[in-house]
Amino acid sequence: MLNYYRSSGGKVECFQEFRPGLFAEAPGALHWIDLEAPTVSEASLLEDPFHFHPLAIEDCLAEVHHPKVDDYDDYIFIIVHGIRFDGPRDEFVTRELDIFLGRNFLITHHKGPMRSITSARELCAKNLIASLARGADFLAHQILDQMFEHYFPTLDAIEDKIQLVQVEVFEKPDRETLDRIFTLKRDVMRLRRICTPQREIVHRLSRGEFVVISPKAAIYFRDIYDNLYRIVDASFAYQDMAQGTLDAYLSSVSNRLNETMKRLTVIGAIFAALTVITGVYGMNFEHMPELKWRYGYWMVWLLMAAVSGGLLYWFKKKDWV
Amino acid sequence: MLNYYRSSGGKVECFQEFRPGLFAEAPGALHWIDLEAPTVSEASLLEDPFHFHPLAIEDCLAEVHHPKVDDYDDYIFIIVHGIRFDGPRDEFVTRELDIFLGRNFLITHHKGPMRSITSARELCAKNLIASLARGADFLAHQILDQMFEHYFPTLDAIEDKIQLVQVEVFEKPDRETLDRIFTLKRDVMRLRRICTPQREIVHRLSRGEFVVISPKAAIYFRDIYDNLYRIVDASFAYQDMAQGTLDAYLSSVSNRLNETMKRLTVIGAIFAALTVITGVYGMNFEHMPELKWRYGYWMVWLLMAAVSGGLLYWFKKKDWV
Amino acid sequence: MLNYYRSSGGKVECFQEFRPGLFAEAPGALHWIDLEAPTVSEASLLEDPFHFHPLAIEDCLAEVHHPKVDDYDDYIFIIVHGIRFDGPRDEFVTRELDIFLGRNFLITHHKGPMRSITSARELCAKNLIASLARGADFLAHQILDQMFEHYFPTLDAIEDKIQLVQVEVFEKPDRETLDRIFTLKRDVMRLRRICTPQREIVHRLSRGEFVVISPKAAIYFRDIYDNLYRIVDASFAYQDMAQGTLDAYLSSVSNRLNETMKRLTVIGAIFAALTVITGVYGMNFEHMPELKWRYGYWMVWLLMAAVSGGLLYWFKKKDWV
Amino acid sequence: MLNYYRSSGGKVECFQEFRPGLFAEAPGALHWIDLEAPTVSEASLLEDPFHFHPLAIEDCLAEVHHPKVDDYDDYIFIIVHGIRFDGPRDEFVTRELDIFLGRNFLITHHKGPMRSITSARELCAKNLIASLARGADFLAHQILDQMFEHYFPTLDAIEDKIQLVQVEVFEKPDRETLDRIFTLKRDVMRLRRICTPQREIVHRLSRGEFVVISPKAAIYFRDIYDNLYRIVDASFAYQDMAQGTLDAYLSSVSNRLNETMKRLTVIGAIFAALTVITGVYGMNFEHMPELKWRYGYWMVWLLMAAVSGGLLYWFKKKDWV
Amino acid sequence: MLNYYRSSGGKVECFQEFRPGLFAEAPGALHWIDLEAPTVSEASLLEDPFHFHPLAIEDCLAEVHHPKVDDYDDYIFIIVHGIRFDGPRDEFVTRELDIFLGRNFLITHHKGPMRSITSARELCAKNLIASLARGADFLAHQILDQMFEHYFPTLDAIEDKIQLVQVEVFEKPDRETLDRIFTLKRDVMRLRRICTPQREIVHRLSRGEFVVISPKAAIYFRDIYDNLYRIVDASFAYQDMAQGTLDAYLSSVSNRLNETMKRLTVIGAIFAALTVITGVYGMNFEHMPELKWRYGYWMVWLLMAAVSGGLLYWFKKKDWV
Repeated sequence: MLNYYRSSGGKVECFQEFRPGLFAEAPGALHWIDLEAPTVSEASLLEDPFHFHPLAIEDCLAEVHHPKVDDYDDYIFIIVHGIRFDGPRDEFVTRELDIFLGRNFLITHHKGPMRSITSARELCAKNLIASLARGADFLAHQILDQMFEHYFPTLDAIEDKIQLVQVEVFEKPDRETLDRIFTLKRDVMRLRRICTPQREIVHRLSRGEFVVISPKAAIYFRDIYDNLYRIVDASFAYQDMAQGTLDAYLSSVSNRLNETMKRLTVIGAIFAALTVITGVYGMNFEHMPELKWRYGYWMVWLLMAAVSGGLLYWFKKKDWV
Repeated sequence: MLNYYRSSGGKVECFQEFRPGLFAEAPGALHWIDLEAPTVSEASLLEDPFHFHPLAIEDCLAEVHHPKVDDYDDYIFIIVHGIRFDGPRDEFVTRELDIFLGRNFLITHHKGPMRSITSARELCAKNLIASLARGADFLAHQILDQMFEHYFPTLDAIEDKIQLVQVEVFEKPDRETLDRIFTLKRDVMRLRRICTPQREIVHRLSRGEFVVISPKAAIYFRDIYDNLYRIVDASFAYQDMAQGTLDAYLSSVSNRLNETMKRLTVIGAIFAALTVITGVYGMNFEHMPELKWRYGYWMVWLLMAAVSGGLLYWFKKKDWV
Repeated sequence: MLNYYRSSGGKVECFQEFRPGLFAEAPGALHWIDLEAPTVSEASLLEDPFHFHPLAIEDCLAEVHHPKVDDYDDYIFIIVHGIRFDGPRDEFVTRELDIFLGRNFLITHHKGPMRSITSARELCAKNLIASLARGADFLAHQILDQMFEHYFPTLDAIEDKIQLVQVEVFEKPDRETLDRIFTLKRDVMRLRRICTPQREIVHRLSRGEFVVISPKAAIYFRDIYDNLYRIVDASFAYQDMAQGTLDAYLSSVSNRLNETMKRLTVIGAIFAALTVITGVYGMNFEHMPELKWRYGYWMVWLLMAAVSGGLLYWFKKKDWV
Repeated sequence: MLNYYRSSGGKVECFQEFRPGLFAEAPGALHWIDLEAPTVSEASLLEDPFHFHPLAIEDCLAEVHHPKVDDYDDYIFIIVHGIRFDGPRDEFVTRELDIFLGRNFLITHHKGPMRSITSARELCAKNLIASLARGADFLAHQILDQMFEHYFPTLDAIEDKIQLVQVEVFEKPDRETLDRIFTLKRDVMRLRRICTPQREIVHRLSRGEFVVISPKAAIYFRDIYDNLYRIVDASFAYQDMAQGTLDAYLSSVSNRLNETMKRLTVIGAIFAALTVITGVYGMNFEHMPELKWRYGYWMVWLLMAAVSGGLLYWFKKKDWV
Repeated sequence: MLNYYRSSGGKVECFQEFRPGLFAEAPGALHWIDLEAPTVSEASLLEDPFHFHPLAIEDCLAEVHHPKVDDYDDYIFIIVHGIRFDGPRDEFVTRELDIFLGRNFLITHHKGPMRSITSARELCAKNLIASLARGADFLAHQILDQMFEHYFPTLDAIEDKIQLVQVEVFEKPDRETLDRIFTLKRDVMRLRRICTPQREIVHRLSRGEFVVISPKAAIYFRDIYDNLYRIVDASFAYQDMAQGTLDAYLSSVSNRLNETMKRLTVIGAIFAALTVITGVYGMNFEHMPELKWRYGYWMVWLLMAAVSGGLLYWFKKKDWV
């Protein structure tokens, strides 16, 4: 699907196709072409009339690259990743966004719908988007800003998951808790590995390193950088929390098990004491006065109860049980 | 709440409102405007007449950003965090302070009362504050210096808590000790994550990187940097201490448990020995001389006492119990 | 074995030997000489007519150096390693590739066949290789690009092995699992130690640091750099995964063992309880009414069954077994 | 206490007080003023006639700052720490030394006696100190060199303590061993945290970064740097050793405990075997030939001895005990 | 012992003593003076006629410094360490080599014989050493190259030791294994701490940073750098291997112990079962039909064998033993 927005003189025109003629007839205009899962013929505009570098085109159309920004003087090529929390599958998914940013044009490419692009398109359709008057760099800022804003609900979802697992660890850990913790650790590591290079990219965009980004726009990219700083900071904190949860789990499981062992051993010790008593009165000595007592048998039961109780009390007092 | 201090010719005037006229009528003066939880109309002075960058205004009025300093040539925008130890809740809380610093003005913004600001205001009210004669950068220094000085009581409180927990670990660790240690670790990590970027910020302020801070004032910021260096250093040391406390706790719990297990096993082994003795005299052989002895039964009791004592002594000598 | 490809005017000639005359008679041509396990006389061309630095020649002909790039102004000398997964031996093997890259020549040296070289030679044989028209740097890019592309199947093989072991750890860990994990860790560490310096090398090649690589070609090397970035990133991730697998294994083994101990202790405790019961009715008191009951003996069996069942039920309810 | 040494024309004069007149009357002289726990009026010379920066004066007179060097163009201000091993308290103590170094003067400040200062003063008193003829930077070098030389006996004391504890760990670890190890770890960490910034400071002094240190003197500071390099290196090695000692202790304690458990369990198993034997001959079957044997009872004793011995032998052979 | 080699016009003269006259009479010659455990009068040549910096002379003649290179413009002073594996003591020993390198002279100092020096001297004696014609820097290269080549046999010896210990860990770990592993870890750490600064030094030598090393010679030092890179790389790998061996040992010991405990507990449980059986037939009920059976007693033996076997089989099936 291709959407072409041409903005000049404060008016945004929208086309469902791209023809070089449309591009040429408005020399001072700003052009935004959004390619969503484009057909081969739609994607061909990257080669002609834009003549982007073959490597950039290849990276753009291929799948799953790591985030990066490449400078080709007249334009820059950016790969970033949007994320979205997929509730049913209980994990977050990433979506690659490829951007060609020139002085008077912006070309975005993605394999499926993205919320940040959709909302920008809606504003364009209503002729409401201020960035289109300010330049391609401001438009790129707006889209990236939206995209990274959408990281925060996912961060919140991950934080919620961590807290749920933490409660589980302290209240009722079981076999699956461990799986959940390992999944969490993997998720958090993945998040960190996506975000750290993106922070670096946005840092470069905000530093005025590229000619296609004006100093005025660079200040705005600094704002995205602040967000990414918080995102990366949070992802490191989550990593610590996930590791701490794992440690707490291992410590908790080991303690519960050891407590159980201790109690079983206490029970065994009490039974052993009772066995000694019964053993005593099972001996066959000819001269054992107790055996002849009228209530000897019942006194043994009392003795056994007393010994059990006494041992339990003593163990408890020693904090052994 | 808005407080506007205008200092010129060694005299400080204080106003409860801000009017552009007040500003314009004293060209060589130094202006300090403190906004404490300002109303919308009070906050509007950031836009007019100061015309700060919209992003800076947004960051200033919004909540909880990470510490940073942004350079807008004519002025700089700083976010720092004050901390205070909240005794009843047994944790420290942070308060965001936003600062716009220009050549002849200082604007501070915070959501609630801050001790560093309050004391500066009191000095202004009494016309006692020397910084107002030396420039906005010196006034900013004074406020920041006060604010970071207030970190130290909180550091002391955290150190006290660590030492309390350490004593607890070695004397009587229980379930809650672990929670306390985890809380402590989290607190210390939070402290470190707040202080490290602030050290970086003050380092930049002290380096003469910004035109609004004169070289003379920069030397004073170096003094704050020294404090922050100590704060960060302490927060790293606390982190080591908290981790060490956790390790000591785990080692201590595990050792206590194992000691208990060892003692229970010793008790079990002694009972097992007694069971063997009673078992022997419970056998039904026709020819067992002891069974016919007059005091055989009582000698068995003696034997059992001797065996118990002997085993205990032997275990003790071997350092097994 | 020596293969000499000379390309000029869009035509590629292939020779099985190298004579200085062949080199001299085509001044504007591009020359590629591939030395595969060369004889001493074949290797002598490095000294004459190319007059490479003796140290570079020594490094080239000797075995197993670490990856590096050395600049000799007129030419650069590169050592990189190709990898291949050796299925039967279940490990990956590396193959050293030595490259001399000049303005109009490329000399490659390797001890045995390499897929990247073979495919380049095949294209040359069919006169199909575009790089030969664009320069020696483009040809070097093509070979290196192919070589590092071949890393990915090996990465996949390693990832498969990790996942196999992870399944094994969670389902049926045994003694050999530990060996497998240690082998895996060693493999992954080796991979990382090969890849990290190579990333650095390709980074330098792509930075336009060497005069023999034109800026146009440097952009293409950036593409290889992206691949190596992913490879190194993956190797770090594998290292984390391998460590995580080891931790999971240790935790799993320890838990299984402890579970077994717990169950054995439960069995012991139940037997101890039964021993107490039999002990009671083995006592020799004169007055023990149960002993005279008609069905006393059978009731003891019932009692023992009940006690066993009751204890088991109680232990299960307490989640002790 | 104040000592003022004035060196000019190869002669050193010593005064117990400082008067600006003394300073002014010898224009080409070198001046060293040592302030040991100075009175307020003695310390006032920092303000007048030296006019040092108020912040430097404050840092100088206040207690316990982290090591640093501040450049004030005409002079530099240095804070370093001497250390001394306090045998009775079995820990090392630090002593802060503050230095103002100008082109023709050196002012040292410390709260109590320091060996490096004392020995320099003694040499001055005897007119023997060569540095006084070579310049203030050489004199500063001499004092710092002495001070850091005094680190080595403390390092040796710490190394001795580590080795004592290591022997203790392998021979007879007890509860206090752990305390000692933790104290050691804290000491070593403290040492490292003092030394690392001082290495950085001396590195800067030796780099010719400050105008008050001549290139000739800078070479000498490089010599101190070498010492500090070794000190820091040693402190890192001690940290590794202390951690290794802790690991060895934990491993040792855990192994001893487990060995004990194993032996207790072996004893329990042997008693259980004996119980089975006595149980067999305690059964009440009518037809048990052994019961009627003349020496049956004694044979049971033999059997029990044989079983105990056999089990012990078997356990030993299996390396279980 | 002093050896003085003077090379000029392709001829090497060898003297057993050094006189300034010998030095002066051959203005264009290259001079190499090797001091092996020199007498005081031999060492005095460092002061006169060479006039080296007193600090360098002190460092040269004193013992055990860390590796370093100091630049004195006209000459550089280098400290490096040779290593040699001392088979009988089963550890490697280091030998300090001090080098003064000027434009036309090389002075080496060491406390005892070094193989690299010895072989260079032998070549000189035979007038065979090419470096003497090429300059002092090439001669220094030759000696250092030899010296670092001699690291490799030591590396191999360490690797062999690691592998021996690893086999021991997996086959028959005992108390001394742990000592061996700790020794190994210390050795490897020592190796790494010696090699890392030397890599840095050779890197500086190869970078053309010093005027006494010509660009042509610097290329050769790059070759030594490659070797040191491999040495440091190997030392890091050994460190990982040693740590892995320790982890494997601890895991192995803990597993063996736990296996033993499990088996002992199984034995205890079987005996407990048998005790229950004998207990049953030791009861004194009047009505116990089995007691009157002709072969009851023998059937109990059968029952006991069956129960033991059944339990063992069940435990084995459950993989508990």
